[in-house]
Amino acid sequence: MRRINVGIIGAGRIGQLHANNILKSKLFELRAITDITIEHLQNTDIQKQVPIITTNVDDIFNDSEIEAIFICSSTDTHADFIKRAARARKHIFCEKPISFSLEQTRKALKVVEESGVKFQSGFNRRFDKNFKKVFDTVRSNDIGEPHIIKVTSRDPEIPPAEYVEKSGGMFMDMTIHDFDMVRFLAGSEVVEISVSAANLVDPMFEKYDDVDTAIITMRFENGALGVIDNSRRAAYGYDQRIEVFGDKGVVQAGNEHLTSVKVATHDGVVSDNPKYFFLDRYQDAYVEEINSFAAALLHGEALLCTGDDGYKAELLAYAARISWKESRTIKMSELEPVNI
Amino acid sequence: MRRINVGIIGAGRIGQLHANNILKSKLFELRAITDITIEHLQNTDIQKQVPIITTNVDDIFNDSEIEAIFICSSTDTHADFIKRAARARKHIFCEKPISFSLEQTRKALKVVEESGVKFQSGFNRRFDKNFKKVFDTVRSNDIGEPHIIKVTSRDPEIPPAEYVEKSGGMFMDMTIHDFDMVRFLAGSEVVEISVSAANLVDPMFEKYDDVDTAIITMRFENGALGVIDNSRRAAYGYDQRIEVFGDKGVVQAGNEHLTSVKVATHDGVVSDNPKYFFLDRYQDAYVEEINSFAAALLHGEALLCTGDDGYKAELLAYAARISWKESRTIKMSELEPVNI
Amino acid sequence: MRRINVGIIGAGRIGQLHANNILKSKLFELRAITDITIEHLQNTDIQKQVPIITTNVDDIFNDSEIEAIFICSSTDTHADFIKRAARARKHIFCEKPISFSLEQTRKALKVVEESGVKFQSGFNRRFDKNFKKVFDTVRSNDIGEPHIIKVTSRDPEIPPAEYVEKSGGMFMDMTIHDFDMVRFLAGSEVVEISVSAANLVDPMFEKYDDVDTAIITMRFENGALGVIDNSRRAAYGYDQRIEVFGDKGVVQAGNEHLTSVKVATHDGVVSDNPKYFFLDRYQDAYVEEINSFAAALLHGEALLCTGDDGYKAELLAYAARISWKESRTIKMSELEPVNI
Amino acid sequence: MRRINVGIIGAGRIGQLHANNILKSKLFELRAITDITIEHLQNTDIQKQVPIITTNVDDIFNDSEIEAIFICSSTDTHADFIKRAARARKHIFCEKPISFSLEQTRKALKVVEESGVKFQSGFNRRFDKNFKKVFDTVRSNDIGEPHIIKVTSRDPEIPPAEYVEKSGGMFMDMTIHDFDMVRFLAGSEVVEISVSAANLVDPMFEKYDDVDTAIITMRFENGALGVIDNSRRAAYGYDQRIEVFGDKGVVQAGNEHLTSVKVATHDGVVSDNPKYFFLDRYQDAYVEEINSFAAALLHGEALLCTGDDGYKAELLAYAARISWKESRTIKMSELEPVNI
Repeated sequence: MRRINVGIIGAGRIGQLHANNILKSKLFELRAITDITIEHLQNTDIQKQVPIITTNVDDIFNDSEIEAIFICSSTDTHADFIKRAARARKHIFCEKPISFSLEQTRKALKVVEESGVKFQSGFNRRFDKNFKKVFDTVRSNDIGEPHIIKVTSRDPEIPPAEYVEKSGGMFMDMTIHDFDMVRFLAGSEVVEISVSAANLVDPMFEKYDDVDTAIITMRFENGALGVIDNSRRAAYGYDQRIEVFGDKGVVQAGNEHLTSVKVATHDGVVSDNPKYFFLDRYQDAYVEEINSFAAALLHGEALLCTGDDGYKAELLAYAARISWKESRTIKMSELEPVNI
Repeated sequence: MRRINVGIIGAGRIGQLHANNILKSKLFELRAITDITIEHLQNTDIQKQVPIITTNVDDIFNDSEIEAIFICSSTDTHADFIKRAARARKHIFCEKPISFSLEQTRKALKVVEESGVKFQSGFNRRFDKNFKKVFDTVRSNDIGEPHIIKVTSRDPEIPPAEYVEKSGGMFMDMTIHDFDMVRFLAGSEVVEISVSAANLVDPMFEKYDDVDTAIITMRFENGALGVIDNSRRAAYGYDQRIEVFGDKGVVQAGNEHLTSVKVATHDGVVSDNPKYFFLDRYQDAYVEEINSFAAALLHGEALLCTGDDGYKAELLAYAARISWKESRTIKMSELEPVNI
Repeated sequence: MRRINVGIIGAGRIGQLHANNILKSKLFELRAITDITIEHLQNTDIQKQVPIITTNVDDIFNDSEIEAIFICSSTDTHADFIKRAARARKHIFCEKPISFSLEQTRKALKVVEESGVKFQSGFNRRFDKNFKKVFDTVRSNDIGEPHIIKVTSRDPEIPPAEYVEKSGGMFMDMTIHDFDMVRFLAGSEVVEISVSAANLVDPMFEKYDDVDTAIITMRFENGALGVIDNSRRAAYGYDQRIEVFGDKGVVQAGNEHLTSVKVATHDGVVSDNPKYFFLDRYQDAYVEEINSFAAALLHGEALLCTGDDGYKAELLAYAARISWKESRTIKMSELEPVNI
Repeated sequence: MRRINVGIIGAGRIGQLHANNILKSKLFELRAITDITIEHLQNTDIQKQVPIITTNVDDIFNDSEIEAIFICSSTDTHADFIKRAARARKHIFCEKPISFSLEQTRKALKVVEESGVKFQSGFNRRFDKNFKKVFDTVRSNDIGEPHIIKVTSRDPEIPPAEYVEKSGGMFMDMTIHDFDMVRFLAGSEVVEISVSAANLVDPMFEKYDDVDTAIITMRFENGALGVIDNSRRAAYGYDQRIEVFGDKGVVQAGNEHLTSVKVATHDGVVSDNPKYFFLDRYQDAYVEEINSFAAALLHGEALLCTGDDGYKAELLAYAARISWKESRTIKMSELEPVNI
């Protein structure tokens, strides 16, 4: 079977993650990887197995063998790379968010659209087996019409200050995943959003005009309500739960725990915390994510997470920030044009 | 040991519930019960064991043997009965809400205060063993400072239209319990409230200018955020869960289920739904509630659910309605005077 | 509705338990209670509400008003009281075991049979809602033909030495409940039993030629296998679990826990232990047990736990002791006559 | 870092499993694989990545580059291959059981001992994260002295008749894993074993003088009791649970389930079955198993599952068969010499 020749832009944590998954996959051939520095790849599997390791991004755009590009560089570079990749007629997998500017995102996606290349947004959680089963249960109508969609999403540890500074803020950096999840589950667009946010975990966030704790309420076109609760630090691990409540029942996905072991003594029953790191929690989801991208490229299957999905989640993150800043409910219709 | 002589006003569902618990208790003597009609008590334990069964409420106020009155009649009668009981120098246990009017509630509580009688509000859930353990865990600082307080509260079935019509609306009738619970757990007052509500379960609610589904977000004085999600109908039973997330951990109370039995076949693992009726779910809590009232009367212990608690929950229900109607965040300071 | 006039013989822990449940029941009238000493009943509900409190057991047998007798005295007195009750033509509820001697038990049950009075054995666990649901699931054929029946039964604390001395040994005192449970669930008789037992909890048991830990394997007529594991002391509470594995699936009843609360911190997730005391764990079962006895007496419903059930469980306890002592598998056919 | 050059004998299901794990590991280099036929490897990763694929087993023994051999061929060939590998001074990883004959196993292990090569037995479950945590909890003394060790081990589906015929019987083929697990957890040797077994799942087993259902009770040197329950077919999936009960508490490892999702409707709460296939359930354990072997070879760490462990488990399987056939408790001292 034909393998897809791939180039990766960005060899940081998420770039290396995709690189390693691609190296293990039979669907892809990792031909090249680029970053502004590449010393840190010394003695890694990437260095040993990837033919082209370069600091010149043009080596990727100009390589006629490369069919698809994974954009895993810092967010401020995404829009430009997307346009260049599209013009080089290479399919694109792009990490979230597409950009920090709705206008830039719209323009980049417009170039993609005109070029005809395929574009997948990097919302890995859609491919988690638990969340996928929730999605399937909702679609099967087993719980009836969705009334309330709840997402609990709490990180185990705060990111470093230098990361927070350039993160685009909690809504754009972290909640964006949850915005995608509620849209994914609701099968309907948000029409109204209202944010209650606070700085409770660490004063560092305030310094960067950011928050670390939030409750975000949404109303969907189909009438359903949604709510996300976020914290930048959960002492007990990475807390990732979802619930969809409908007129015939409820479906819930709980956390995955380190082991199934329980110890009961006079002092109570003790069991393991949720998995601590997102790479552990979503390890399989990251693999499924690129398998799905490959299926779109090799077999023409529908993309399960499009550029429009990326844009819509960004738009919600943008609206959330306004709602927080202005302490009011935002109608999404205020933020036209909402369509790309 | 001395028993407290009690009279009950109102022999509907909740009045009979208290009557039966009082009949089984060693702390009380149920001397009298009154209602506008009493035929339905024919052949019940109440009829057999209660000396005075009367349609004349004065038989209770004028009975010098009676020390304490349980007010379980319809909400529109509460304020008047509270004032009469207080003036008759009888201690008061009053079902929620105290009244449909903040002003009436304030006035009634003022009479109570001046009379010096004790007054307990009927928020039974504070006495549930699960929720009490959550409260104790929060107070013990085991989970640190509370950041997010979550209440899921969904009824198993919609009430009849005639009930809804006179209920004061979902926030005053149902969410009022959840408002009390978030205050109880937060140990801090709400400063801001924002409601997203909808009519998804049954069009009947809309007819009475009411909703059946809501997400309610609050900000507390101590900085914590709170969120309640409500539905008037959960197909799988009475869904009553709470979670307090703090900087050192999280504490959760789940539902109580009918049995602990699991059946696993080729088709999956099936276990029992949550208990279906509030009388089953909170059976023990209702007993603890009156035990606590007795402890205040007999031993001078502090009242665990005061008139002020009743007023504050009403105020939140009132604010919630405005927030829903005006689609905006309400600052509680808008609604002065907040103190009685 | 007619109430059954009852006398209770024995006012120890279990006698008082039944007395209090009977006092709360609308199906019975507790007319008399007797014990060799009655001082300990001073100031109890029993003293206040029971017309006849006596040290003369004849006051019960000779009372023509009494229709049914609960035998809750020490085991060595059971057989004699059963015969006297039967001859006095009074229905009998008898605590386990019926006696310490198979021959005495057979003789007593023969007198019962000849007299035509009804006789219920005190295996309260058959009336536990969880175990009853397991039973119903097995009978409904949802898990198919039973292949393996497992009972875990561990007490929270060892009994005092003076109790152990007269207990008849662990198999007769404690495992007898589990023997009844496996018979109940299997719907088939044991044909073979093999015991592996040990003295691990406290050397006191060895002093009384007794054990405190055991694994007991059984083969049933219908081919199924059964296994019980026992300990006289589980540090984490009263451990009472059952599992029936069949060709179409498995049904399990877990423990009931004190609360549904979970606390997760950096150190793991902590939840509550199983209920600690048998009176808590089986509180409702004891009520259902006497309700069932009343249904047999008042409405002619079938007895759900007969004298034969009592005898068969004793026979298994007796066989278990031989298996332990002789370190070999016992065929129940060795112990004829097995039928009364 | 130096990689261990490996040859694999046997390219059936388990041989291919190890081959694929070795191909992905950085600790090993898979130099050669052999089987009596190799056509089935056509177009597999094994064919693409393994330099030597041969039907001549001597190509492995004679290859001076190969340091270690994985013996994954049919059980009847193990003993001979072990001896040849040892004499060729190659370290050995051998699948279970070592042989069908205790004498052959002893002789083979004697050759291993004399040669000084390292030998690991293939009990993968010791390396499962859940069971390893149970082991660690027991060793840490958190539950005190072990009193009862319970293993539930039920396969999801019966093997084909041709497999059963050559399997050595259920105890040698399937229970052998559980025998290793109870020894591993008890940290003590079995002194007595008693089996109750039956043919309930499929008459095919009886045809091969085999059973499909069993309860196996053991007594350990340290006084603890153990019990295993087995079935060849659990309709709901691969059921693998363990429990160690001690004087200070209990530790339990439950099954791993397909997802964490629960769906609650009017009909109850439905969740996923245990993982169905042993390759799914123990996927990570198989990787840890070879990592542990590598650590012994590369860094001189202790072997965590020795030849003696393999022999002891076989001896228990052998004793179990006698106990079943002769319907009696077997003292392990009857089966001398027990030490190799």
